[in-house]
Amino acid sequence: MTAPLWQKDATPATDDWAHRFTVGDDYEWDRLLLPYDVRASRAHAWGLRQIDVLSETEWTRIGDALDALLDAFEAGDVTVTPEDEDCHTVIERFVTERAGAAGEKLHTGRSRNDQVLAALRLYLRDALAAIGGRAAALADALCELATRHPDVLMPGYTHLQRAMPSTAALWTLGYAETLAGDLDALRHARRRINVSPLGSAAGYGVPVIDLPREAVADRLGFRAVQTHATAVQLSRGKHALAVGHACTQVGATCNRLASDLVLFATAEFDFVDLPPEHCTGSSIMPQKQNPDVLELARAYHHRLAAQMQSLATGPSNLPGGYHRDLQLTKAAVLRSVEMTSDVLTALAEVVRGVTFNPERTRAACAPDILATQRALERVAEGVPFRSAYQQAADAEPGPVDPGAVLDAYETDGTPGQERPDRVRSRLDAHGDWVVTP
Amino acid sequence: MTAPLWQKDATPATDDWAHRFTVGDDYEWDRLLLPYDVRASRAHAWGLRQIDVLSETEWTRIGDALDALLDAFEAGDVTVTPEDEDCHTVIERFVTERAGAAGEKLHTGRSRNDQVLAALRLYLRDALAAIGGRAAALADALCELATRHPDVLMPGYTHLQRAMPSTAALWTLGYAETLAGDLDALRHARRRINVSPLGSAAGYGVPVIDLPREAVADRLGFRAVQTHATAVQLSRGKHALAVGHACTQVGATCNRLASDLVLFATAEFDFVDLPPEHCTGSSIMPQKQNPDVLELARAYHHRLAAQMQSLATGPSNLPGGYHRDLQLTKAAVLRSVEMTSDVLTALAEVVRGVTFNPERTRAACAPDILATQRALERVAEGVPFRSAYQQAADAEPGPVDPGAVLDAYETDGTPGQERPDRVRSRLDAHGDWVVTP
Amino acid sequence: MTAPLWQKDATPATDDWAHRFTVGDDYEWDRLLLPYDVRASRAHAWGLRQIDVLSETEWTRIGDALDALLDAFEAGDVTVTPEDEDCHTVIERFVTERAGAAGEKLHTGRSRNDQVLAALRLYLRDALAAIGGRAAALADALCELATRHPDVLMPGYTHLQRAMPSTAALWTLGYAETLAGDLDALRHARRRINVSPLGSAAGYGVPVIDLPREAVADRLGFRAVQTHATAVQLSRGKHALAVGHACTQVGATCNRLASDLVLFATAEFDFVDLPPEHCTGSSIMPQKQNPDVLELARAYHHRLAAQMQSLATGPSNLPGGYHRDLQLTKAAVLRSVEMTSDVLTALAEVVRGVTFNPERTRAACAPDILATQRALERVAEGVPFRSAYQQAADAEPGPVDPGAVLDAYETDGTPGQERPDRVRSRLDAHGDWVVTP
Amino acid sequence: MTAPLWQKDATPATDDWAHRFTVGDDYEWDRLLLPYDVRASRAHAWGLRQIDVLSETEWTRIGDALDALLDAFEAGDVTVTPEDEDCHTVIERFVTERAGAAGEKLHTGRSRNDQVLAALRLYLRDALAAIGGRAAALADALCELATRHPDVLMPGYTHLQRAMPSTAALWTLGYAETLAGDLDALRHARRRINVSPLGSAAGYGVPVIDLPREAVADRLGFRAVQTHATAVQLSRGKHALAVGHACTQVGATCNRLASDLVLFATAEFDFVDLPPEHCTGSSIMPQKQNPDVLELARAYHHRLAAQMQSLATGPSNLPGGYHRDLQLTKAAVLRSVEMTSDVLTALAEVVRGVTFNPERTRAACAPDILATQRALERVAEGVPFRSAYQQAADAEPGPVDPGAVLDAYETDGTPGQERPDRVRSRLDAHGDWVVTP
Repeated sequence: MTAPLWQKDATPATDDWAHRFTVGDDYEWDRLLLPYDVRASRAHAWGLRQIDVLSETEWTRIGDALDALLDAFEAGDVTVTPEDEDCHTVIERFVTERAGAAGEKLHTGRSRNDQVLAALRLYLRDALAAIGGRAAALADALCELATRHPDVLMPGYTHLQRAMPSTAALWTLGYAETLAGDLDALRHARRRINVSPLGSAAGYGVPVIDLPREAVADRLGFRAVQTHATAVQLSRGKHALAVGHACTQVGATCNRLASDLVLFATAEFDFVDLPPEHCTGSSIMPQKQNPDVLELARAYHHRLAAQMQSLATGPSNLPGGYHRDLQLTKAAVLRSVEMTSDVLTALAEVVRGVTFNPERTRAACAPDILATQRALERVAEGVPFRSAYQQAADAEPGPVDPGAVLDAYETDGTPGQERPDRVRSRLDAHGDWVVTP
Repeated sequence: MTAPLWQKDATPATDDWAHRFTVGDDYEWDRLLLPYDVRASRAHAWGLRQIDVLSETEWTRIGDALDALLDAFEAGDVTVTPEDEDCHTVIERFVTERAGAAGEKLHTGRSRNDQVLAALRLYLRDALAAIGGRAAALADALCELATRHPDVLMPGYTHLQRAMPSTAALWTLGYAETLAGDLDALRHARRRINVSPLGSAAGYGVPVIDLPREAVADRLGFRAVQTHATAVQLSRGKHALAVGHACTQVGATCNRLASDLVLFATAEFDFVDLPPEHCTGSSIMPQKQNPDVLELARAYHHRLAAQMQSLATGPSNLPGGYHRDLQLTKAAVLRSVEMTSDVLTALAEVVRGVTFNPERTRAACAPDILATQRALERVAEGVPFRSAYQQAADAEPGPVDPGAVLDAYETDGTPGQERPDRVRSRLDAHGDWVVTP
Repeated sequence: MTAPLWQKDATPATDDWAHRFTVGDDYEWDRLLLPYDVRASRAHAWGLRQIDVLSETEWTRIGDALDALLDAFEAGDVTVTPEDEDCHTVIERFVTERAGAAGEKLHTGRSRNDQVLAALRLYLRDALAAIGGRAAALADALCELATRHPDVLMPGYTHLQRAMPSTAALWTLGYAETLAGDLDALRHARRRINVSPLGSAAGYGVPVIDLPREAVADRLGFRAVQTHATAVQLSRGKHALAVGHACTQVGATCNRLASDLVLFATAEFDFVDLPPEHCTGSSIMPQKQNPDVLELARAYHHRLAAQMQSLATGPSNLPGGYHRDLQLTKAAVLRSVEMTSDVLTALAEVVRGVTFNPERTRAACAPDILATQRALERVAEGVPFRSAYQQAADAEPGPVDPGAVLDAYETDGTPGQERPDRVRSRLDAHGDWVVTP
Repeated sequence: MTAPLWQKDATPATDDWAHRFTVGDDYEWDRLLLPYDVRASRAHAWGLRQIDVLSETEWTRIGDALDALLDAFEAGDVTVTPEDEDCHTVIERFVTERAGAAGEKLHTGRSRNDQVLAALRLYLRDALAAIGGRAAALADALCELATRHPDVLMPGYTHLQRAMPSTAALWTLGYAETLAGDLDALRHARRRINVSPLGSAAGYGVPVIDLPREAVADRLGFRAVQTHATAVQLSRGKHALAVGHACTQVGATCNRLASDLVLFATAEFDFVDLPPEHCTGSSIMPQKQNPDVLELARAYHHRLAAQMQSLATGPSNLPGGYHRDLQLTKAAVLRSVEMTSDVLTALAEVVRGVTFNPERTRAACAPDILATQRALERVAEGVPFRSAYQQAADAEPGPVDPGAVLDAYETDGTPGQERPDRVRSRLDAHGDWVVTP
């Protein structure tokens, strides 16, 4: 265990076991945050320079030390170990070793409470944009799948019973459209967290020195300063919950997309072929091709929901102000963004390899899915719907003519009228986020 | 049990017990929705008139029947009973009785799947605005509390240990500010759901007739049509989750505000006096004054989080398309908005009656909460912070002079520099929602 | 609002709105508890008689008053209204009106804290036994279903892919067996809560008078006294969580049973016919038969899990001792037992009406589900399994002979060897709980 | 990536990314399971020997190979890497390399589905006993704390308001007693999972060969065979949920114990001194002593509850039979037992170092906590309780005489009558689990 920042003399500050218990697996997450903490530390130092807490020389030395730290971190020479209390300690120690007394000034006017939030928010800002890009890539893959399978008639299901005519494209674009809605949710969460905590210190502000909070926030690209210091601490779990919710929204979409594909890939439905390289086998049953990637993509939703749950209740029933309990929200939110990113990537890969079996989907369109259409044809002849409905229930709907079925819908009525371009236009609104898959 | 819409002959459609089991307590929630269902039904009928499915006379007769229904409902002569399948059935039956064959045409081109969503979204649109108004009213009450107690020094706590100087106003405005963030979340959820499902029918659109989806959506004030029919069904649980999340965000703020007040009202802290008319007594201990309202306001957060959880997982692992499982999301989201509204109202009442005890809060400001300030004073003299920190740890911080302490902060630094007007300006952005408390 | 027990003078004790907010829907749940509260009150009065706090006359008068109350309650003349604070207040008021000064002695040595727990535990003791009886009845219906369909070959699925041979009976008895495990969980929860809280009062015992705690506990059939008064209050949320968990275990079994049946009833699988009187129709699609009862039975599991969640987190992060937050655990646990009971009843009804389609299940047994069997036949000839596996993967498994397939399993190997009697013997262990369905 | 067991030719079976996605962090958890998998594999091989699938020589060679594997694993020469699919693959590969064709026979009559459950249950059997031991150790530390502080008067709180007299021992033993209840829950969960899955293979049994399921189960110390093969797969998430629930019960106790101690350690209460070596400091506030260990012990409860939640919902809405989704239950349950163990250990350490401040706790006993006692004294003089209650509410209760207060309770009445020996006797019932702390 290395000496913590708050150790006041030579006596070890805590028991070894207490150190291990309090650090937990946090050092692993802090490795993700370290570069963002360096960026925020640099901006904080720049702020200290503006108010002359740092001289020009000190500011340069600290900047050089932070450059060196980043290099060493990227080279793998410095990392956060279980012996370190956190990435903040690693940074202050490294800078103090390099920059001497200047380094001892770096922590002026901040606490690890606002420091970790600054690093975390910068990280999440990037991570949410990356998730947005991946969600857009999955939506794009779905649009392509729709484009590859125009006019493939298949049943639309309600209650898992064949209900009305649908198409492969209507099915596919429904998910793409849903992802466009998820992009809005991600953007809202990202906007919410993109406010600067710096200057709030331990939740009660900074006396004596007058930090340039606005200017530092601008420098880091935050949209505003979170001015009320107590609100910063209150927002800790709430921001994490907002991010967890946005991830869970994505997870929910992926969950149902995967559920559909697993069902469509059964021998009984046989509506789609999955790419074999994304399936796995059985140790006992030689014939098996299992859709494990889809199943796990589906299952991670429950982990996301559980993380969201822990974020909703973890900080509850506690008075205001920081409590160490809030540390656990860090791992929960970081896990959530990692999982969401992985699931989106996996599903996009699978979707790119999916092929529909049009003969099978058409064969599943038994005549009775036309009952509503027949009723509405009578309505067009002037029969009130409820009577037409009773007549259609008694009648034999007659054979299915795929072309005629698809043509029975006007624009926006849907089957056969689906337009990938409309979904794409909604994705374009998030074009700044679209990453190469 | 009254005959369901889909009964095809004289045989009872389901067993009585199956009817009771499937209806559950849904009829109670449908009472809330009925007026909104009437509004959406009127707009749907108007759409049918535009495409000549209804004649002018039929449209008038349906309109009159809907007027009569609303009157009868408000007078208590018509309601949704456990014997009815749902409010949709009540409406179609009433209109058909009044308007004859015209009534039998009302359900043309819609399913109960899009009908219930239209009613639910209209309801939630109002409910979320009302919650926003109540959240703003609570924030307003907090701003007033801050204004009533200027410059009341009290300790700021971290880890429930006295940490740094704070003020009653800093504490109070932190919650007001947090509610301003919650208003953004409510607004985002409201925007998300404010799209028209009409025309998606059972999730696969409407053949043969060409409904004027855009015009009907406009008429109901929806910001857009949700065009892809499959996306409408997929959004059912997701919209509810978004609303559940926004409510849980409000619940989380209320939870911690209540937690603080319960703690501040203990004999040990004694920082605040609660209004006695919002406390209750004990059946065995004659001397007790218990903060029950606050405790319940705190506790409801867990019900909100649990509802959110059920919305995240209930529709999971299911293929696309409607399943009856989704019916349960209706009660979950309606319960959530009701609870949120009640909790906000209760807390605003309590906050209006709270008084701080400045002597007690000042007395709790033991000298050592000035340690950081003393360290920063040395920093101002040029001592590096980490050395100043060690010196402050060893020194006796000296007596607390409240005025000097408050003055040690520049604007935005916090204690003594808090500005209710800044919070109020953020609330003003939601001025359209502010309801009379 | 009627005067609460703790009102000390003529001034209304709380605002009307505060009364409404704190009572919530609790009065509805208290209607369930009232008869159990009467039973516990009678035993408490008996205890007071043993230590001469009540005279023989007073004890008789209280007993008569409690008899009268029960009669009035059953006749519907007395109930718990929203104006009452709770059922405890209703009882004390009624008894005091009838029995005069004797009634004023009834609350000696108890608090509503131990009173409500006594009533709740007595209620749950009955409710859990009733749920056990219903779980046993469902298991029994499953055993009968297995008995009605001997030797019906069907595929066993893993990853929803056809994997190995199974039978209708193996599928069916798997659920019956799982319910036998759930009965153990219910019994454990019931044993846990079956301890007397009486004498713990508000969580700190009773001074001056020496209540006969053991004797009163015996009289009420509790297995022991919960002696440490503080432990009684700590157990409040924990007991509820244990019950919520047991209910969720039952819910989980029902959820998957329903999921299987919904899938088996699709046109694509078509393995079972569901009783039409337990299905519902569509308002727009005349041809539909929807498995709504099964879908809701599946969906309630998520409400159960959410209630369990609220029981796990609601009392968390709170110091010991009673808080009003704990009131909400009452509704959560009572809702859970009600839902569980309803779901079990509904599923038993459906299962009694289910019929397998043996032609369809056999037709689904494509030859490749025999691959493992073929590999093991080679193993029987001395080929190492992993080599046999590779050979079987390359070979054509040959046609399926149902009789031979079923015979390839020894006792306990399974397909064709299932024994309903073994499951029934495990149910017999809970014979005291088996209620007439 | 090493070749999976089910790879049928030279082509890589899955994409690298699909391998990484499906393995996730599972290999880390499989390191915990490997020794248990070896034990179960040995028993399975013994079973194969009994039915002559293995010759005596083969059985010996496999046994030697398993010995060698265990040695290599303990020496760190063999482990489960991210490139391996799982620990099962590592074992089969190692044994086949060492034992040749005999190794290829090891997987005869089993699937990884029953193999992983066997290993997991053996692991959990040990882990739950270890947790039981740690829970008993914490209860023991609490009993010692009670013994160290006899007759220390302190207020008992309800609603966080001083309510009635209590003692340090009554507070302390309430938690010890609650842990005794948790031990019952752990034992129930342990009993539930202690059944052998071996012979159920992929969930549909084993044809052709007749495995000695009972004898193998005996050899591994399972209390019974889980005979119905489909029930084994259904139990996967349910067993995990039962374990997750037992852990959450422990977590709930620890959560409230920690909450109390954090509150008692505030400057305002100042009822206890915490061991400084279990506290941490602040990077900005030199004077702070923060109860981080207690706060984290409290916070982990929410992770436990979230894991439980994911176990309740993850497998829901899925048809029967194995799905890859179930893999995630493994990490959830293993994380839960690890966390529970850590939290218990941490709290026992802290409790051993806690000291009560009797002057402070006594000073907090303001006269009005005697109001109930005063009322009961009047009851003893024949005044009906409700009248005595009104009189006590109006009267001044008079000064607190600690000795007299403690003496006012008879045995089991509580304050001053607490008996650590009674709690210890309940712990003794779990003596087989008590581990040296």
